[in-house]
Amino acid sequence: MMTGQGHQACWCFHLCAVEALRMDSYLIQVDGHGDHAPVLDVHLKTNGNSISLGKVKGRKPRWAVRASEMSKKTFNPVRAIVDTMKVEPNPKKAVISLSLGDPTVFGNLPTNDEVTRAVKEVLDSGRYNGYAPSVGYQSCREAVAAYYSCPEAPLEAQDVILTSGCSQAIELALAVLANPGQNILVPRPGFSLYKTLALSMGIEVKLYNLLPEKSWEIDLEHLESLVDEKTACLIVNNPSNPCGSVFSRSHLQKILAVASRQCVPILADEIYGDMVFADCKYEPIATLSTNVPILSCGGLAKRWLVPGWRMGWILIHDRRDIFGNEIRDGLVRLSQRILGPCTIVQGALERILHRTPPEFYHNTLSILKSNADLCYAALSAIPGLQPVRPAGAMYLMVEIEMEHFPEFENDVEFTERLISEQSVFCLPATCFEYPNFFRVVITVPEEMMLEACSRIQEFCEMHYQGAEGAQDLECDK
Amino acid sequence: MMTGQGHQACWCFHLCAVEALRMDSYLIQVDGHGDHAPVLDVHLKTNGNSISLGKVKGRKPRWAVRASEMSKKTFNPVRAIVDTMKVEPNPKKAVISLSLGDPTVFGNLPTNDEVTRAVKEVLDSGRYNGYAPSVGYQSCREAVAAYYSCPEAPLEAQDVILTSGCSQAIELALAVLANPGQNILVPRPGFSLYKTLALSMGIEVKLYNLLPEKSWEIDLEHLESLVDEKTACLIVNNPSNPCGSVFSRSHLQKILAVASRQCVPILADEIYGDMVFADCKYEPIATLSTNVPILSCGGLAKRWLVPGWRMGWILIHDRRDIFGNEIRDGLVRLSQRILGPCTIVQGALERILHRTPPEFYHNTLSILKSNADLCYAALSAIPGLQPVRPAGAMYLMVEIEMEHFPEFENDVEFTERLISEQSVFCLPATCFEYPNFFRVVITVPEEMMLEACSRIQEFCEMHYQGAEGAQDLECDK
Ligand SMILES: Cc1ncc(COP(=O)(O)O)c(C=O)c1O
Ligand SMILES: Cc1ncc(COP(=O)(O)O)c(C=O)c1O
Repeated sequence: MMTGQGHQACWCFHLCAVEALRMDSYLIQVDGHGDHAPVLDVHLKTNGNSISLGKVKGRKPRWAVRASEMSKKTFNPVRAIVDTMKVEPNPKKAVISLSLGDPTVFGNLPTNDEVTRAVKEVLDSGRYNGYAPSVGYQSCREAVAAYYSCPEAPLEAQDVILTSGCSQAIELALAVLANPGQNILVPRPGFSLYKTLALSMGIEVKLYNLLPEKSWEIDLEHLESLVDEKTACLIVNNPSNPCGSVFSRSHLQKILAVASRQCVPILADEIYGDMVFADCKYEPIATLSTNVPILSCGGLAKRWLVPGWRMGWILIHDRRDIFGNEIRDGLVRLSQRILGPCTIVQGALERILHRTPPEFYHNTLSILKSNADLCYAALSAIPGLQPVRPAGAMYLMVEIEMEHFPEFENDVEFTERLISEQSVFCLPATCFEYPNFFRVVITVPEEMMLEACSRIQEFCEMHYQGAEGAQDLECDK
Repeated sequence: MMTGQGHQACWCFHLCAVEALRMDSYLIQVDGHGDHAPVLDVHLKTNGNSISLGKVKGRKPRWAVRASEMSKKTFNPVRAIVDTMKVEPNPKKAVISLSLGDPTVFGNLPTNDEVTRAVKEVLDSGRYNGYAPSVGYQSCREAVAAYYSCPEAPLEAQDVILTSGCSQAIELALAVLANPGQNILVPRPGFSLYKTLALSMGIEVKLYNLLPEKSWEIDLEHLESLVDEKTACLIVNNPSNPCGSVFSRSHLQKILAVASRQCVPILADEIYGDMVFADCKYEPIATLSTNVPILSCGGLAKRWLVPGWRMGWILIHDRRDIFGNEIRDGLVRLSQRILGPCTIVQGALERILHRTPPEFYHNTLSILKSNADLCYAALSAIPGLQPVRPAGAMYLMVEIEMEHFPEFENDVEFTERLISEQSVFCLPATCFEYPNFFRVVITVPEEMMLEACSRIQEFCEMHYQGAEGAQDLECDK
């Protein structure tokens, strides 16, 4: 347990270093090249030899190397928002970062020894250094299939494709299901990678609403109204980043009913699968359907607390043979582009899945649950904030009653000032297409969680405008 | 040393198992789904509820999930050729596979202990389990920069992007440099991934010739004649797969002169960098140019004998600031799609680069050189074959004087029969767009190399048609 100021200073150092590198899991530091000319085609050819070979060109060639359209379309909204935030934390307060979707940064949630030992054994064996098949070793696909197979949704090795993280699983799933010009249905608020990937591939994104007042259930009417002939798939993220919500069986059945009626396949992002608090049950969506074809994306990142290892998978659920060979073969072909995840992690998979002691999972979840309760209780008591109680994953969303904070234009300004005054860093939910909320990461040590909440309280008390101010504002509308 | 029949049987078992999984590094087993209907849109919606929400559709939706165009365009020519080969090895002879570009399959070329130990230390530290920046940890980029930096081509951390294998390095480099509709210049014979990636992105491929009679130097006139306004980059693979050739300094200078005259940036595939035999010198192409912008792709796969670990990199050489921020930022954005290579290998990089003992590299190269000499000598003595002496990498190309083998239509038939009669498996060079040659992998144990050569000899002697037969055929043309 870390309580002293010395420890906080130490966190601060660590956090600043991490923060400098990437402000979210999908952010990286762009090294400055301020001295480089932004326009490239001013560089004339310096070698003056005339061309004697090949076709004679109308003019001397000159250097004009432009980045491709695709690289320009590959765009991380979180980066764009956070980059423009440009604020300095309060130098008098140690930074507390509640912004990173990386459970490992604080050191309070190490992975299990079995996990590490499994990889070390693989290294010692020397048997996993060569190329694996691009979809993963057969034995590892079998191990994943066996682990996730159940009577309602049986899986075999051929239904598993191993990928470089859940991110690549999502990339391959989208790449096989959607053509440029088609659209996909994406949750709002939702994880930004869906849009980043889709737009870079020329796929349109249609955002369907989640309802905070219904614990972030999907607005099913809205969802169904978005489906058209060009809809290639429906992304369902359960448990949810950024909401920390977990769908009930009956809600999942209703989602499946929409997909079934509209004949839209589902891309289930289940990277937080099984990460639900004790009072709640996680149901893999595929176990509730017999007809909707589903690509379920998952991986080791969150539950096993090793996001850097980049081990993910696609589970193909297709009991009515709607995907058939075409989608399977397409996934196989796409996997050949960069050849799957690191083999030493692959080799360890079976042991990781089967030997990690149940206490490890329970322990993680009880820490998360306890932090969630603390944070929810603390923030609920703050006038002007409305947290939504999470049931799983590692996040909690908080509504900012903007009418009570007339100083701030929006969630971005609110979180900016929270950094500059209190050195507490939360992501504005505009990053998730959901203004006037912010996201809190609850993987921090308990003391930091409490300290962060009390600083947020101080901040809100400083800036809160009571009922009258609020009413005035309401009247302006 | 393995000589007895028992050991050969053991190789055989191992080889067959590997072969079943993938016939080349880029081949994987496609699981059979023979019982699945190939056409998908015959599956009618089984849930008969009519639609009450959203737009009313003109007709009932029905399931019609098709694989995307991109997944269909992602096509591995090696797979296509080898898949149609459908031959059984001779059951009386143990299989010898000289087809896989994976130096680890035979167990005779293990990686160095330092390499393994470095990763184990990283695991023990517990400090490399979280997300790294998508372009790699700063310290690891520094380590790679320091290792490859030299006065003629200095590198800093910001010039290094870590990737999931050299394959992803090539993918990102192509993705940032070329738009659909542009073209790239690719060596013939050449590594098939260039074309696979380019076609999947809608980029046209123009093949420039390598000249076997000049130790596979580039036909520079041909190369230059292919450049047009739509040429996005020139791929130079040195040392070469499949040729085993190594370009001299003066040849590299001539290639650079073409690039410079035509203002075409270079994508240098230097995954076999430094893997050249003692009598030859490897020059990174970037060290010979001051103006041509170059993306050099490399990785741990071959020189450190750990291809499964999927650790690669792009080195950005841009001393005239022609790529500038635009290409650098584009690479950074593209790297955010799937978030870089496995962090436990990243964490080990510095130690791997700096502590692997020089004897390790020398030992690998002396084994390769000795096999190359053996194989070259043995095949040179076989009437009807014309091997080209390699100077590096792990391959050797052999011309089949087809006129002396009138039984066989082409290299595919020749290598097919070599499998069915002699259980020796070499890739037909049609896989590399170069008919009438085959490629031999020289990473096998010496005894296997010799045994393979003697079986190839037996095979050729069986099928060779002397001068008269050959002349008859010439007259037919
Ligand atoms: C909802 C969601 N899906 C996918 C991912 C990506 O997982 P991975 O790190 O395995 O690529 C994340 C990571 O934060 C996530 O929150
Ligand atoms: C010429 C060439 N480039 C790139 C690669 C891919 O390297 P990696 O395994 O690091 O992706 C190979 C692999 O065989 C190769 O031969």
